Amino acid sequence: MIGAEYIAEFFRQRGSDKFFLVTGGACAFIVDAIGRNPKTDYVCFQHEQAAAMAADSLWRVDRTVGVTVATSGPGATNLITGIACSYFDSIPTVHITGQVNQSESANFIGTKVRQAGFQETNIVDMVKPITKYAVQVKNGEELKIELEKAYNIAISDRKGPVLIDVPMNVQKEEVGDVIIYNAPKEEKISTQESQKISQEIAEFFKDAKRPAVLFGAGVGLSGTEKDVVEWLNKNSSVPFVASWNGLTYFNHDMKNYHGQIGVYGNRGANFLVQNCDALLVLGSRLDNRQRSGNPKSFAPVAKVCVIDVDVEELKKYKNEGYKTIHLNLKDIKEVLTVVPTPSQEWIDYVASIKKEFFGKDAGEFSKKNKSLSPYGVIQKINKMIEDDAIVIADTGANLCWVFQIFHRTNQIIYTAGGNSPMAYSFPAAIGAALHKPQAQVIAFTGDGSFQMNIQELQTAYFNKLNIKIFILNNDGYGIIKQFQDLYFEGRYEATGHSYSAPDFGKIAEAYGVKYFRINEIDDVTQEIFDYQGPAVIDIILHPNTLIEPKLEMGRAIHDQYPYLPEAEIHSLNKFNNYRRAP
Amino acid sequence: MIGAEYIAEFFRQRGSDKFFLVTGGACAFIVDAIGRNPKTDYVCFQHEQAAAMAADSLWRVDRTVGVTVATSGPGATNLITGIACSYFDSIPTVHITGQVNQSESANFIGTKVRQAGFQETNIVDMVKPITKYAVQVKNGEELKIELEKAYNIAISDRKGPVLIDVPMNVQKEEVGDVIIYNAPKEEKISTQESQKISQEIAEFFKDAKRPAVLFGAGVGLSGTEKDVVEWLNKNSSVPFVASWNGLTYFNHDMKNYHGQIGVYGNRGANFLVQNCDALLVLGSRLDNRQRSGNPKSFAPVAKVCVIDVDVEELKKYKNEGYKTIHLNLKDIKEVLTVVPTPSQEWIDYVASIKKEFFGKDAGEFSKKNKSLSPYGVIQKINKMIEDDAIVIADTGANLCWVFQIFHRTNQIIYTAGGNSPMAYSFPAAIGAALHKPQAQVIAFTGDGSFQMNIQELQTAYFNKLNIKIFILNNDGYGIIKQFQDLYFEGRYEATGHSYSAPDFGKIAEAYGVKYFRINEIDDVTQEIFDYQGPAVIDIILHPNTLIEPKLEMGRAIHDQYPYLPEAEIHSLNKFNNYRRAP
Repeated sequence: MIGAEYIAEFFRQRGSDKFFLVTGGACAFIVDAIGRNPKTDYVCFQHEQAAAMAADSLWRVDRTVGVTVATSGPGATNLITGIACSYFDSIPTVHITGQVNQSESANFIGTKVRQAGFQETNIVDMVKPITKYAVQVKNGEELKIELEKAYNIAISDRKGPVLIDVPMNVQKEEVGDVIIYNAPKEEKISTQESQKISQEIAEFFKDAKRPAVLFGAGVGLSGTEKDVVEWLNKNSSVPFVASWNGLTYFNHDMKNYHGQIGVYGNRGANFLVQNCDALLVLGSRLDNRQRSGNPKSFAPVAKVCVIDVDVEELKKYKNEGYKTIHLNLKDIKEVLTVVPTPSQEWIDYVASIKKEFFGKDAGEFSKKNKSLSPYGVIQKINKMIEDDAIVIADTGANLCWVFQIFHRTNQIIYTAGGNSPMAYSFPAAIGAALHKPQAQVIAFTGDGSFQMNIQELQTAYFNKLNIKIFILNNDGYGIIKQFQDLYFEGRYEATGHSYSAPDFGKIAEAYGVKYFRINEIDDVTQEIFDYQGPAVIDIILHPNTLIEPKLEMGRAIHDQYPYLPEAEIHSLNKFNNYRRAP
Repeated sequence: MIGAEYIAEFFRQRGSDKFFLVTGGACAFIVDAIGRNPKTDYVCFQHEQAAAMAADSLWRVDRTVGVTVATSGPGATNLITGIACSYFDSIPTVHITGQVNQSESANFIGTKVRQAGFQETNIVDMVKPITKYAVQVKNGEELKIELEKAYNIAISDRKGPVLIDVPMNVQKEEVGDVIIYNAPKEEKISTQESQKISQEIAEFFKDAKRPAVLFGAGVGLSGTEKDVVEWLNKNSSVPFVASWNGLTYFNHDMKNYHGQIGVYGNRGANFLVQNCDALLVLGSRLDNRQRSGNPKSFAPVAKVCVIDVDVEELKKYKNEGYKTIHLNLKDIKEVLTVVPTPSQEWIDYVASIKKEFFGKDAGEFSKKNKSLSPYGVIQKINKMIEDDAIVIADTGANLCWVFQIFHRTNQIIYTAGGNSPMAYSFPAAIGAALHKPQAQVIAFTGDGSFQMNIQELQTAYFNKLNIKIFILNNDGYGIIKQFQDLYFEGRYEATGHSYSAPDFGKIAEAYGVKYFRINEIDDVTQEIFDYQGPAVIDIILHPNTLIEPKLEMGRAIHDQYPYLPEAEIHSLNKFNNYRRAP
């Protein structure tokens, strides 16, 4: 095999047999090798960014490692925004970039010129801040060693993307016929260690009267969601809440589930966090969108214990008095032996919170303005889609609306939470649909976001993908408009003013993609879901439709807009002294 | 002023009063400040990549520094491919990225987490390999100092892009009302130094019988094209050739101009290089597309003298015996005092080469296949456009065709030569048209490339830009297909096979953009140019249309495909011993 053939075969043997790519001069040998290998295939995207986002999608669907191939220079740099999605959300992906022949490279020539070979770009240094590992291989032997190493780094906890830069001469080099691969050693936690941690958790909950649990994405990323769900079912008087990337790993019908937390969190979930006295955090990094810009106002009367595989994440809490446990959550079952015993007062409070808030977050804006409610539309779609549908949200307002109201039973639902780029959901949906051709794939996006990867309508059309793209169309960047209302006296610079969008109906038609326009809730019909093939569903909202509830700067997470009366906040904050923002 | 206002006013005072951007949470204060400043304005793009390419365009049009504004995370990373265009071609641009509040950043928290603040991304380290300078400012004072510093670095030789990352708290900080700015000191070359270099050049040409000059982009970038043209006119028996980025700086009617050189160079120009005995290179980096993959086969019987501002570029030649002169070409007039005296034999040879080859590079493929010739179409467009039109080519086949045949009189013609991304020309044309609303702006692109920034049709439509987008449509990536013909037995993986493009007529119509379809040369009519507004002109080529001439790997630049008869090569290589490839 030559290096290019080795790459194709290496990933095929790992179960990643479909490569997402845009070709180019410096990766042509690899693309040719993929084409010649009878068991590998590839899909042409119209922009490498979309290929990288589609690759990111695969692990979220069924734990397949997505692989992209790109050419040197602009091909490689076009991947970057997609790679960042994988990095911040701990998603293993592999990115193979072609590079100029070593003899033509600046390094080889021995000067610090900006560029020597055509389209030569130092992609390895550029992606270091957003990859777990990035390396340029110098010969066939290194290619074999580094492919194994990089792949294992990607799939090991804390997971993430890797990039391997392969000069053209290495792509052409004879490397022999043996694929080198040894899976990473899985070290099981020792009995002694698990007993120690188990004891620590028991200790943590020992005197707690108001225990609560936060279900983070780390649970699902480590593949232990069933164990945790089992434990939560066993402790069904202990309420739990979720992070955004965590909420796809359990059925929201679970009796003790109360919603997702944070700036755009469900009110009930936020009140529970603010009133509990012991919060166990499982594999969540508690970022600012969860704890607000003022972390001290988060869970103000609780002991907090965070379990995470990444020691750096745990260091964050050194000044906050949190208890931290360094553990790979793959071993969570071994240590979750405790049964917390909530007080009756807490059990009653939790029940009242659930009754008052759960599933009732639909905003007031649409009622007041007699306009179409995004919450209403999403709830209706939620009820109409298949139980094993794949649902992807984008960023900004559409993301908030979906994650605030979507009730997950058995669907797969995700977004690129940390990077949160505009235009993630549509290419991610393409990745999901290519990977699971029988699945119903639903992408939510905004009119601003959708434009940013609109070229991929061609990919969806050409590959006849069964994707439904729901545009929550508020004619501009809604989440920023809401920010501008608050802080800039409603000056809609670059969000309403000077912003524009095309007629998506005409665009869809031009691409041969089906189009539906939703002016009122009754326009969401079964016909949309019965249609087999790509469709754009344009949901026309009032341009000022709000995200509700939403936390404003400087407030604590129980004090979201639209504001509850002071007395109600006070009575709901039964176990703390908070009224308004501290 | 707050930091955001300072940024707007700083650039206004520098003459960059129109910012190219996509807004977002972390740059909203800056966008608001630009909107409030009565003398600054902004344009909303649909993707930051296009904004950066449009900004790159401005310096190439009239030496205005283009400025972009982007939000943190994906906003910033989306700029990268555009920034790289500026870096490799020495174009000064400034990129302002918003960043999370410092108090929310990973650095502040003191751990090495992947991300702390929402959409926090270490853009500064990421762009270091493709910027002259990149910095995050920590407070208002630093903002003022770094803006001046970065701006001056960008516009100083060797020019290039810079990036300033501005945390939200710095955007909001009071910074006072005084704009700090001192222009960089222009040091004039000393008489002694200029006399020394002048003498060196005289020495270099002293015994030369067959002198030649290569006109590089560095001449124009240093603003001395008139001086060099004057000198070349004075020495009109000395032939000169050009690099791609150099050929926009003089009138191709000049008697001693012979075309552009290299892998896709004009045959006559290449033969001159191969046969001259003294080649003076002015501000060109002689990359692989000029000298081929085997630099030793370039100008094999010549002494070569390279003048460049970048010492690292000069180090490349340490093993090649080239004479190098480190000089900022702004002082070129002072040192170009010599008058080389070619032999009569060389004068005759040069005249015969011009007669045989100049302006006659139109390929044979179209004649053989009785298909539309891209060369013929470009020549016709060349004749029909205004003398001060702005012409931009993209990458791949369309770029080669345009730069091989376009005869520049007074137009501005450019491409992103070093980075050469797909989809540069259209957003660059948007930048040019926004900057020069009265100009006729012509973008050449390919069907593959055009798709990659197709979302910007909305920007062109909304801003009513007078842009003509000529798609040289060969239904796939032509330059790669030609490569696959040669090396992969015509397996068109990802270029023909599995590649697809939409009906551009329908797409244009959907965006409200005029569409013309060119099936034969007579379809190129005045109506296209009379139409005021954005138009897509779809030129339907045979899918296998070749770039001719073109150098294959391993050959020297006089030996391009389609191959000349051995005897002709021999007779044209009158002054060297080359027949075929060495």
